[in-house]
Amino acid sequence: MFILTFERQIIIINGEAMKFVIIGGDAAGMSAASRAKRRNPDIEVIVLEQTHDVSYSACGMPYNIADPLRDMDLLVVRKPGVFIEKNKINLLTGHRVTAIDPKAKTVMGNTHKGQFFTFDYDKLLIATGASPVLPEIPGIDLPEVMVLKNLDHGRQIKDYLGKGNVKKALIIGMGYIALEMCEAFEKRGVKVRMVKPGRVFLPWLSPDLAEVVQKELILNGIELYPGHTIKRIESTGSFLDIICDDVSFQADIVLVAMGVKPCSRIAGQCGIKLGISNSIAVDRFLKTSDKNIYAAGDCADAYHVVTDKKCWIPLALRANRAGWAVADNVSGRQTSLRGVAGTSVFKVFSLEVARSGLNSKEAVDAGFDPVDNSVTTRSRAHGQPGSEPIHINMTADRKSGSILGVQMVGKEGVAHRVNAVAVALHNGMKLEEFSQTDLAYAPPFGPVWDPLLTAANQLIKKL
Amino acid sequence: MFILTFERQIIIINGEAMKFVIIGGDAAGMSAASRAKRRNPDIEVIVLEQTHDVSYSACGMPYNIADPLRDMDLLVVRKPGVFIEKNKINLLTGHRVTAIDPKAKTVMGNTHKGQFFTFDYDKLLIATGASPVLPEIPGIDLPEVMVLKNLDHGRQIKDYLGKGNVKKALIIGMGYIALEMCEAFEKRGVKVRMVKPGRVFLPWLSPDLAEVVQKELILNGIELYPGHTIKRIESTGSFLDIICDDVSFQADIVLVAMGVKPCSRIAGQCGIKLGISNSIAVDRFLKTSDKNIYAAGDCADAYHVVTDKKCWIPLALRANRAGWAVADNVSGRQTSLRGVAGTSVFKVFSLEVARSGLNSKEAVDAGFDPVDNSVTTRSRAHGQPGSEPIHINMTADRKSGSILGVQMVGKEGVAHRVNAVAVALHNGMKLEEFSQTDLAYAPPFGPVWDPLLTAANQLIKKL
Repeated sequence: MFILTFERQIIIINGEAMKFVIIGGDAAGMSAASRAKRRNPDIEVIVLEQTHDVSYSACGMPYNIADPLRDMDLLVVRKPGVFIEKNKINLLTGHRVTAIDPKAKTVMGNTHKGQFFTFDYDKLLIATGASPVLPEIPGIDLPEVMVLKNLDHGRQIKDYLGKGNVKKALIIGMGYIALEMCEAFEKRGVKVRMVKPGRVFLPWLSPDLAEVVQKELILNGIELYPGHTIKRIESTGSFLDIICDDVSFQADIVLVAMGVKPCSRIAGQCGIKLGISNSIAVDRFLKTSDKNIYAAGDCADAYHVVTDKKCWIPLALRANRAGWAVADNVSGRQTSLRGVAGTSVFKVFSLEVARSGLNSKEAVDAGFDPVDNSVTTRSRAHGQPGSEPIHINMTADRKSGSILGVQMVGKEGVAHRVNAVAVALHNGMKLEEFSQTDLAYAPPFGPVWDPLLTAANQLIKKL
Repeated sequence: MFILTFERQIIIINGEAMKFVIIGGDAAGMSAASRAKRRNPDIEVIVLEQTHDVSYSACGMPYNIADPLRDMDLLVVRKPGVFIEKNKINLLTGHRVTAIDPKAKTVMGNTHKGQFFTFDYDKLLIATGASPVLPEIPGIDLPEVMVLKNLDHGRQIKDYLGKGNVKKALIIGMGYIALEMCEAFEKRGVKVRMVKPGRVFLPWLSPDLAEVVQKELILNGIELYPGHTIKRIESTGSFLDIICDDVSFQADIVLVAMGVKPCSRIAGQCGIKLGISNSIAVDRFLKTSDKNIYAAGDCADAYHVVTDKKCWIPLALRANRAGWAVADNVSGRQTSLRGVAGTSVFKVFSLEVARSGLNSKEAVDAGFDPVDNSVTTRSRAHGQPGSEPIHINMTADRKSGSILGVQMVGKEGVAHRVNAVAVALHNGMKLEEFSQTDLAYAPPFGPVWDPLLTAANQLIKKL
């Protein structure tokens, strides 16, 4: 028996209040928990989180680590107690779920003290996030080999740096976490080397834009070693030896930042359908292949607004938004999500690097006939001091004339500018239509022809 | 006889090269001239400009005036000689057009030396711009009463400030030129008072946002006197007395910045149809009521993308874009413009103030049923130092659910963020759709939920 009483917003299943169990208390999980309680205080919300932290700015960790005077706990938005007392959420930290039984509608696992637990659910949300990709090499488990995913990882790195004996860091990987952390290390006076197996620095970026970022790193004393695969890491007792085929490095700390993979193991094991990159396949209502189980956040896939196909792009905004949508859907309101554009931005030293949509390679893979073009314009108007170059690569589809994506690099005016293209992508806008948009102009903020419009006008000529 | 030979792109009329005459050598005029020559070098392009400056950043003047060390001519993008020699444009400065004869297809006027001139045209572009609104009061013609529209005005103000005896300025008006200039005066050590007849400071802005701007001015020592009409200005020989009904001011310089009006007199006199606010009515191809005459820039009207009705919003980007479109249309390529969203931004002291689309009052006037809401969020993520408040007022239509407009005020992250809404307005996006857009996030640049998304999410609740 399933009764939805919309007037009083009480959901009763078999005569009892509905039980909504959430695995994972990060962005998606806590967004869902709080919103479900707001939508309907009668729902019993149980959150099972394996760590002891919920509701913190994970993306803020590199910036916090960069500053020895800032406490790591400044990143905590709400402490677990607040959710328990104020929101009446049954939030259980130190609870690691190990299995789901979709037939019996139960989850089970162990607490950090080793106690077994089990919970029944009416609706379940899997919000297990993603975990760092680790190379399977000897020495990966050494204590000075670290990752940065949750707040405990951040504390561990910061504590280690605080000991003052860290002179050299080796970062494995050159993605955006790696780049944010190279700046954090550098700010802490630590010499940084970066190494990765792939030969191309920032392969998702147009080569001319990637070169701008690479130069900025070199200018800041970062040494880059693309094209080297690490074979093993050894500890001498006083430092680490990182051994590749053809080269070896010494470091006091190794940060592994080779990307993340979805935490979908327990979902897969209980028969839930997995999709792209082993993420949990969900429909537009965030429902998995099991009608009582939802998935949201970095563990789940999404539709891409440009391709209308499934993609796996783990980003914080999507996690929060998906958490809200699941809360709506379990509390009697139907909310579907339209999809992601893959919009992202990061800061590295004085540069802002942003993208939205597809690059040329992704566009070809998705069946488009892409044309791309790069322009370099200025961040301020003619005659305005302080102007800096803005580099933009824009991609459009030769057949339909639609914009497919954009990438931008510059010292100012990049981070928020990219959003104009993101909105265009959500609307399937033609390049010609975008080139006619009425964007803001004032001399301190850009040229009369906004850099994005110049990029569009130049790309039109190649279509 | 009118022959269009597309292959060789030669346009011949009555056996001769087409004559394209342009009145006004500012943004729209010079954009049209240069592009027409690029599209087809055989077109004879004649530009008649009454001043001696073309192609300069007029919007940059307040920032240039603020800095005594910067030469005013740094704002000049290209000198007249470049257009004549490089682009083969017949550019005639010091040529003031006084009349058009559409039947004879001629324009006539006088040079600055008093010589009469006349030119035949096949196609004519009126790009006469706008001129400052001046109150009809005694003393308005005193030499210390100045305006800021063209480069000579800028030079005049800067030269006067350079004399070093300017201690007090009175600005009549409180629009964006007035606000940019109050900062310029302040930076030059001049005490600024601002006065205007209307009682409401920045009436186009939501009152709570206007208050933020007002406080910033007061914090910077600017005195505001709204609700006072100036009766006359008198010179004592050593300073100016500015006399209102109930109050009077003393100043060394008066800047009149009460807004602008379209320079449409010669168009109206020859029978060309005028439209809203006496601007020259043009179709989407920038054609006036005379089939051989186009108008572009601040003298012409435009379609608004939100209302799909005519509006008169003089802005630099539109002027440049319209100039290009006219060049296309006279050189054999059909280009129509979709319309403006009224997107604008200005800087005043540490604040960025931006808008796009309609405010509530404009929305009511256009027949919508608007709902608006203000939010204050932050410019950076939780735990990120340097975060500043961002104030956003968003308006949507209760009936259709469409976004109608946005206004934003803040110390960072305003100028380019507004463009995301501008693009949404061009697409007639529903508020709910906009609230689902995938905008960029990184801690130095904003919260996970971009301020625009928070504004949209809160406004949805009121729809």
